Formats: sequence, C-alpha cells, structure tokens
Amino acid sequence: MATVNENYLRLQAGYLFPEIGKRKRAFQQAHPDARLISMGIGDVTQPLAPAVIAAMHKAVDEMGVKETFHGYDDGGVGYTFLREAISKNDFKARGVDIDVGEIFVSDGAKSDTANIQELFGLDNIIAVADPVYPVYVDTNVMAGRTGPAARQGTYQKIVYMPATADNGFVPEPPAGKVDLIYLCFPNNPTGAVATKEQLKKWVEYAGENKAIILFDAAYEAYISDGKIPHSIYEIEGAKDVAIEFRSFSKTAGFTGVRCAFAVVPKRLRANTKDGKAVELNPLWSRRLCTKFNGVSYITQVAAAATYSAEGKKQVRGTIELYMNNAKIIRQSLTKLGYKVYGGVNAPYIWLKTPEGAGSWEFFDLLLSKANVVTTPGVGFGPAGEGYVRLTAFGDPANVTEALARIKTI
Amino acid sequence: MATVNENYLRLQAGYLFPEIGKRKRAFQQAHPDARLISMGIGDVTQPLAPAVIAAMHKAVDEMGVKETFHGYDDGGVGYTFLREAISKNDFKARGVDIDVGEIFVSDGAKSDTANIQELFGLDNIIAVADPVYPVYVDTNVMAGRTGPAARQGTYQKIVYMPATADNGFVPEPPAGKVDLIYLCFPNNPTGAVATKEQLKKWVEYAGENKAIILFDAAYEAYISDGKIPHSIYEIEGAKDVAIEFRSFSKTAGFTGVRCAFAVVPKRLRANTKDGKAVELNPLWSRRLCTKFNGVSYITQVAAAATYSAEGKKQVRGTIELYMNNAKIIRQSLTKLGYKVYGGVNAPYIWLKTPEGAGSWEFFDLLLSKANVVTTPGVGFGPAGEGYVRLTAFGDPANVTEALARIKTI
Repeated sequence: MATVNENYLRLQAGYLFPEIGKRKRAFQQAHPDARLISMGIGDVTQPLAPAVIAAMHKAVDEMGVKETFHGYDDGGVGYTFLREAISKNDFKARGVDIDVGEIFVSDGAKSDTANIQELFGLDNIIAVADPVYPVYVDTNVMAGRTGPAARQGTYQKIVYMPATADNGFVPEPPAGKVDLIYLCFPNNPTGAVATKEQLKKWVEYAGENKAIILFDAAYEAYISDGKIPHSIYEIEGAKDVAIEFRSFSKTAGFTGVRCAFAVVPKRLRANTKDGKAVELNPLWSRRLCTKFNGVSYITQVAAAATYSAEGKKQVRGTIELYMNNAKIIRQSLTKLGYKVYGGVNAPYIWLKTPEGAGSWEFFDLLLSKANVVTTPGVGFGPAGEGYVRLTAFGDPANVTEALARIKTI
Repeated sequence: MATVNENYLRLQAGYLFPEIGKRKRAFQQAHPDARLISMGIGDVTQPLAPAVIAAMHKAVDEMGVKETFHGYDDGGVGYTFLREAISKNDFKARGVDIDVGEIFVSDGAKSDTANIQELFGLDNIIAVADPVYPVYVDTNVMAGRTGPAARQGTYQKIVYMPATADNGFVPEPPAGKVDLIYLCFPNNPTGAVATKEQLKKWVEYAGENKAIILFDAAYEAYISDGKIPHSIYEIEGAKDVAIEFRSFSKTAGFTGVRCAFAVVPKRLRANTKDGKAVELNPLWSRRLCTKFNGVSYITQVAAAATYSAEGKKQVRGTIELYMNNAKIIRQSLTKLGYKVYGGVNAPYIWLKTPEGAGSWEFFDLLLSKANVVTTPGVGFGPAGEGYVRLTAFGDPANVTEALARIKTI
C-alpha cells in the first residue's frame, strides 16, 4: 500500500496568496465595475530591458540552427558565461571573491530556498524571523523537520525570532542553539535591511554554534544606502557559515522568465552526526545534477545580458522607477498619518494598520473602500499581525491612483 | 550544529554521465586531434522547429512591452493555453480523458520523476527495473527510502526487477508486495516497449496491492507500432493507480529549453498509515506552488507551438530523422554481427557487447578505437552489464561516420 508523506498534511490550509486571490475574486464578482489595483503579490509590472529582449532574440535564432543549437546545459549548474558574469559583477566588483565553481544557476530563488533544506538532516533546528517568507517554513514542514502546527502560521520545533518595530525588524541571534538560520535582507515582507554590524553578529553566532545561515538576498538590487552590504560574504568569515540566494526576478523583471542562482562556498561544511565534516558545495552540485537539468539556454543568455553596459543601465532604470513608487507610497501614507517602514532599501513597504485594526480587517477595508489589494502582514507570521505589506512593483499611474483612493477612506 | 543529510552520503560515487564526461575529457586531452562522436548522453542535435522559433520570437516581443508582459505564471502549474493543448492532443486525441486540472507543467521530466517521491512516506517499498534510469533510484536514496548500497549501482530495500533479453526487457509484476513502481516505456536505456496486455498486468497488480505506478512516457513520440499504448491511461483503471510523466525534451528537441509535464489524476489516492485516503492531485499542486514558480512564459508558448499544424509536422520530421538513424544503427550493427535491441519504438539501441566484454571495457574500446562515446549499460544497473546504450539523437552524417569507424575495430 502506497502511503502518503503525512508531513504535507501538517501544512495549514491555504497558502497566503491563494487566500488573497479568493477574497479578491469574491469582491470583483460582487462589484464587477470596480477596477482593482494590486499592491499585494510581489510581481513586477514593467517589461524586460531592451538589451535582454535583443539577447533573447539572438539566442532563439541560435536554437533554430543546427550549428548553434544548445541542448542540455552540461551538469545543470549553469553556463560558464553566465557564472563568470555573476562572479565578476555581483561579487568581485564589491570586493568579494566568489569563484565560478561556487555559483549554481537555477530557475528561481523560490526553488533554491525551498530545496536547500534537503542537504541537511531532519534533526536540525530551524530558526526563522517572524514575519517570514512562508516558503522557508513550509518546505521544512513538508520535509518533517517540524512538529505539528502551533499558533496560526507557526509550527512546533521551529524557533521564531520576532522582527518588530522595537528591534527595527532585524532580530538578534537567539540565546539558545539553532542549526539552520534563514535570513532575508533586504527583507520580505518588512523592507528592513541589516547593517554590517548586525550581520557580523549572525556570522559570529553561526561560527560559534556550527550553524549555517541561509541568506536570501533576492532584493539586494534595491539597496540605496551605500553602507548596507549586498552580500553576506561582505562579512569576514561568512564563507565558512553561509549559503546565499540571488534572483533575476526582482532585479531584472524575470518573474515570468525564471532565473536565479545560489552561492555555496567551497569552504562551507556541515557535519555528520558523528562529527565528520562534509563539504556542501559538491552535495548541492549532486542534488542539481540528479534532480534538475539546468535552466533554458535562452534564459541564461537573457540573464547574462543584464550585465552588459546597456543592460545594467536599463535594469537600473526600472529599479529606480519602482523605488520612486516606493518613495511616493511612503511619503503619501506618512502624510495621511500612517506609520510606514521599509521602502528605502527594499521594494516593500510595511504599513502599520491604524487604530489596532487586524491585518485581514485592514486588508478588507483597503479592498472594499479603495479597491486596493495588499498582503495581510499576519500571513507572514503572528508578529506580522497589525501590518499590511505594500509592494512598489506597480505601474506608476496605478500607484498614484491607489494612493489617491486611500486618501479618501 | 548543522548536520548533513547522511542519505546523500550513501550515493555511490559519480553519477553516470559525469563519469562518462570525465573519461571523454581525459581521452580528448590525450588525443587532441581525435574527433569524438557522441552516441552516449541522450541529448538531441537537431534545431528547434521553425514554428517553435517563430512562436518564441513573438513571446519574447510580448515580454518587452508593458501591455503584454507576463510575470509569474499564477499558481506555477502552467498556463491554461498549454495545458488545454496537451489535454486535447496528447490524450483526448487518443481517446483518453485527461482534464486540464490533472496536468502540471514543469521544467523537465527529470525534475518531475525526481520530485514525485516527496509525496510519499519514507516507508514505501520502491520497485524499479534493472537496468533503470538512475534518477528514480538516486532520488529515493537521497530521501532515505533505501538502505545502504548493496552491489554496484543497487541499494538495500529497493526491489529490482531484471529486464533482460529473456523477458524482452519488460519485467512482470513481482510476486511480493511493493508500493511505488517506476515504469518507463518506451524504455530508457533498453528501447523496449510494453504492450497493452503487459501494462494491464501492472495496472491490475497496482490495484490489488494499492500500489502506485510512476509511469515515465518521455519517449512516447518515438512509438511507431500502432498497437503500443502511448499513455498508461489507455489501460482501463490506470487513473486510479498511476501518475504519468511526459516531456518536450525528446519529442521536440527541448533539452536546452526545458519543458515537461506530469499527469496526476484527480481520482488517484494514497493512504495515511491509519488507512485514510488522501488525494494526490492537490498534494502535487501544493508542492509546486510552494517549491516552484512555474515555467518561463516564452518556453510555454514554445511548447504550445509544437501542437500547431505546422509545429506537429516539423516535430514529426525531426523524430523521423532520428528514427532513421536508429534504423541505420540497428541494421549496420546487425550486419557487423552485433546483437542489438530497441531502436524501433524508441530512440535507444541496446547493444550486447561481444565476447563477454564488460560494459565499461567495451565503452573504452569504442572510445579509444572508434572515438565513439556510448553509455555503459552497467551504469543503469547490474543487469545492464554486458551492454552499452547507443542513442539515435545524433546528426545523420555523424551516425554514418560512427558506424564506419565501428566497422574497422
């Protein structure tokens, strides 16, 4: 008799975004004339950069000719031309020495942050911020690394680290021991960033406790403050304790194209139960070559084009457009008397709901009165209660209209 | 202390294809003037169909314009336009009623056949053919569903079903009970196909034992015999016991583009340990929406183009080119006195090594004397010893030359 993975059955009903979709559709059906504006799901709205489009056309043409056709990406870890561009532009340009052999190209940071837990034993204690991107938690539930559901959105055996206005949404390392630590800076959903000093404490904690940091830097392109690190490897010693995740989704509008990469330093090791050190770089490579077959050649050419002089300029232009949205959202909401966080080094604005309204309550208010869709903060964890997340990825005209509508409620 | 997933350490050294790559590179370095011809790794050589190229150019242009830009593929299970084309052309056209909601688009049959085991408990007993596509076994090792390595390429707790010349490379259902059965027809590596009667026995076995069949039909487009089923769902009752995997890789040359799909029937259930039936369709959907973010819009448009009248004709033309290669390989080798199997309803030829030579021995001989790269049969399991696999995916000129060289050894 085939038995089911019962860990899946521990997942709490309704992944956040389907629930938002349901409420959105119900409202739209009841009010067919309302024009909803989405500031909820973190999807981009601006087209791909012209340099990327041109590169993709060229790659498509290559695939139509026998002599330039590309089949399997040998090994499934990414073409050298892309990994070299990443190494040079994302790391060496910032004084960080990350080698091509430490870079693994994939179809998304969601896939990578979801799959990375497979390299570790089921006995590891996981620490996550609260609120948190749900994928980190859910994938550990599915693997059986947690107990049953505790409070809404939380599970037994996971260590939740509240990220609140009091700590500037950057939790300190815990007093006790944990083994795997998910950190996301610039943060989804709060828009907070961590300073060098704050990250240094985490790297030290990991070193002392032989813990590993899983560092999600998918939003690093949105950092405007020159003192904020873009990579955890800007912290000394991080190559001994951290894996980093990057994505072209939010950097270059690749949500519908699918390209990302993970950095697994060659020095990074975890232990067997009897204390033997095991290198994680070949383990991740083995996972990819067994369970994955690489990213489309066309997509990898497109990603590489974001590093050309033209591509960089165009990609930067779109990021500035989104960050101008963020600025307008912050300023307008502040003027209306709302308390807002984030939106300076991140494309997310974390809005405190007024007068103690609950997240879903305020979500429903914004939906029904302003026809604006947001993301309820509590959907990211209990400490997100009393907040909603707004994204800056909208079209500027829609952002302006959304704020004009919010003004009237 | 972060601990490693020790199941990974049970994997036997060297995934097959990297090992082949290593020997190939070593030979090439020692003989820089030798022009190697690959008949080893199952990668295609012919360019994408013109209809696919045209569709991709159009999709790339859409991504460059705000009004037609596509971000996330909502839910990550595939666009309806592609799933409808699949339902109609791959199933309804063969009298099989598979609904759009039962089709899940992915980036490859390797990913799907690797990931599907996650839906099942660790206590399930796995059955595979021997020889077998290594991914089925390795992913179960990594999950901890096996014991340690036994003989080369095998693991304790897995039930291996020898596929030999004696049973026409189609094993019978086992006498004892197993829970998850991987079947691959047309078969990689032997090129064997299963008749309706043979598949019927498997469906009956699964029904009687509440087992689930994981049916890899990635090569169905190569079936030339009108009586051989293309889908397991052509067998009555299969929707209650089977998941099917399909791919555009070998059908339409998408090895470097990445698109495939899995079919998880709504009627299909597995049980909790205490006997409660759980539907697998929503579980697979939950996996995808948590760990995956869909396939590139451009790639899905490309896949849909293979179902246009033009696309179908062009794709068929390439398959016929490969199958003509297969015919030439079969005929030439037979004429040279070799014993060969497969290559009639599959792009693989399973060649018995002469005079009791071992697989790797004959691999090395073909590499050094004919400069032809093959795949050692033993790499697919102990029952593959004494065979090498040849693929028909080469360019016709290379195939002809390879055979001329083999003639001289």
